[in-house]
Amino acid sequence: VRVHVVGTGLIGTSLGLALRHHGDEVTLEDVIATHAALARDLGAGRLAGPEGPEETPDLVVVATPPDVTAACVADSLRRWPTAVVTDVASVKGAVVAALRTERADLARYCGSHPMAGRERSGAVAGRRDLFDGRAWVLTPTPETSERAVRVVTDVARAAGAAVRRLPPEEHDRAVAAVSHVPQLAASLVAARLEDLDEASVALAGQGLRDVTRIAASDPSLWTQILAGNAPAVRDVLTALAADLGSVIEALGALEGSADAPGARGTLARTIAAGNAGHARIPGKHGAAPTAYTTVRVLIPDEPGQLGRLFADVGEIGTNIEEFHLDHGLGQPFGLAEVDVVPAAAAGLAEALADRGWQLHG
Amino acid sequence: VRVHVVGTGLIGTSLGLALRHHGDEVTLEDVIATHAALARDLGAGRLAGPEGPEETPDLVVVATPPDVTAACVADSLRRWPTAVVTDVASVKGAVVAALRTERADLARYCGSHPMAGRERSGAVAGRRDLFDGRAWVLTPTPETSERAVRVVTDVARAAGAAVRRLPPEEHDRAVAAVSHVPQLAASLVAARLEDLDEASVALAGQGLRDVTRIAASDPSLWTQILAGNAPAVRDVLTALAADLGSVIEALGALEGSADAPGARGTLARTIAAGNAGHARIPGKHGAAPTAYTTVRVLIPDEPGQLGRLFADVGEIGTNIEEFHLDHGLGQPFGLAEVDVVPAAAAGLAEALADRGWQLHG
Repeated sequence: VRVHVVGTGLIGTSLGLALRHHGDEVTLEDVIATHAALARDLGAGRLAGPEGPEETPDLVVVATPPDVTAACVADSLRRWPTAVVTDVASVKGAVVAALRTERADLARYCGSHPMAGRERSGAVAGRRDLFDGRAWVLTPTPETSERAVRVVTDVARAAGAAVRRLPPEEHDRAVAAVSHVPQLAASLVAARLEDLDEASVALAGQGLRDVTRIAASDPSLWTQILAGNAPAVRDVLTALAADLGSVIEALGALEGSADAPGARGTLARTIAAGNAGHARIPGKHGAAPTAYTTVRVLIPDEPGQLGRLFADVGEIGTNIEEFHLDHGLGQPFGLAEVDVVPAAAAGLAEALADRGWQLHG
Repeated sequence: VRVHVVGTGLIGTSLGLALRHHGDEVTLEDVIATHAALARDLGAGRLAGPEGPEETPDLVVVATPPDVTAACVADSLRRWPTAVVTDVASVKGAVVAALRTERADLARYCGSHPMAGRERSGAVAGRRDLFDGRAWVLTPTPETSERAVRVVTDVARAAGAAVRRLPPEEHDRAVAAVSHVPQLAASLVAARLEDLDEASVALAGQGLRDVTRIAASDPSLWTQILAGNAPAVRDVLTALAADLGSVIEALGALEGSADAPGARGTLARTIAAGNAGHARIPGKHGAAPTAYTTVRVLIPDEPGQLGRLFADVGEIGTNIEEFHLDHGLGQPFGLAEVDVVPAAAAGLAEALADRGWQLHG
């Protein structure tokens, strides 16, 4: 297929590299000519002429910054009256709304969102394996033609991704809850650490590290993402703020009377609701959540010990489902948590103990 | 030394096991006689007689549920007028306040908090390695004698822990920010997933998994912990709620006008404050944060592949500082993130590529 990429940043360049590797024909354009030239030099495709590619593309992929995505999609639908057009912005509803206002040809537009990224940006950060195994969500509207869905599906798969489908509004509500609000929660919790002295921050354990890992994210990128999905993020945050208000109120009641029974009930329900929500998160590969059994192994803090553990697990023949390495404050050992299917846990623990590993709970 | 343990649940039993292993003399008591007998049968120590141990203990460790800790410490100070007394509750200020009200002998009391636990409870869950390498925070008051601090320090070290010191109020403020509020944030974010349909929850990625991992915690235990530290937790949550309110307001302004510049500034400052707080979290072993370099390796989803990777890293001789396995939605590969010191990254990447591993960014 012939694919024309508009915008040669990280995503556009990576897509060009992946499709060229797959054997597709790729043309490139960018409002900044030197950016497009760099993507070409990296092997992402040929430069389109000043009037665009000589031959009509099968698919135009708009990979510009979010703020200009809708205008660029509308423009592309006009410039190539037979081509299918998609975009890769991480928020979809606003793009569709703008296209409706412009009375664009929605039959040929199928929005999409590859769930892939890097902490670096620009063509130089492009990788042809960026989409390997990642989800690429297609967000067709009722007007979107089956041809448009098929063309975008084929290209996403050619780039190595696994295709999913959601209506645009559902996609935006979903990413608000599973991505945008968790980002804000991590940032808000991490921000509270600024008030602490060194000795207090030093009590940080694995729980805090996990909750705040994504608090290291880029403020400029996240401002654009959050602003683009403001209504959906606000809905989830408003519900969360109401729950938070109840917790604060309950804690206030408990300051007055340690036995305030309604207050303890509020706290218990809050943690229990978290249990229920957490249980809904799918296991690896999008499968239904699986209850793995954890085998905990003490690891001396010396080079090669973790490698020795994994070599042993490999020889024992157990597949590791999840793995977590817990380094606590001032401790000479690491605590490795090896999650395996329940049926394999006892055998693994026994075999590891036989090989001299110290198991821990 | 002679240690008397009051309360033979997870912590009391584990301490008995650790100290017996170390060669100390341990006596046990519990208001439920069968619990104490079980701890004895597991090897945690001898049962004290109905009047307590025949010989005066050097240290009494109160390891009861939080709600009765203060009363039990006061009682212990009266029963053994020369012994040092400590407790292991995860909130310290309330215990000291109650002891002051009772005019207890604070010179012989040194509160403490071993940063160790399990998701299971009771004597049967006891482990003699529970404290290995974990922090054990001592929270002396101005009245606490040096002897009391020394006795508790020695016993905590004998159990395998690394001793830290903080005033009780500072300890409580610290755990509010580094433990109690992160727990609530994880629970509140996870609770929002209950409203989503399957297809939406299926978009969950590693960020959500990290933020909500501890949302699986026990509601009853956490209700006691939060209730015991209500003022400090409320202070941190109130500050967090104010930040959250600003974010909700900014998102509301952006719904009205996508360009609202003050609103975007609020979002950017929120994420940036999270960056700053996150940077304060110490690295492993309580050392200053270290910027590791990440080597990303694609791992086929077949038994033994992760073992092969670690065996290779072990042979190459590079020490792994942090390790993370990222399984995205519907992907045939796992993406392993291997964090190493910056100087080792290029060599590791090259050696892994030589061995046929597909590196990813």
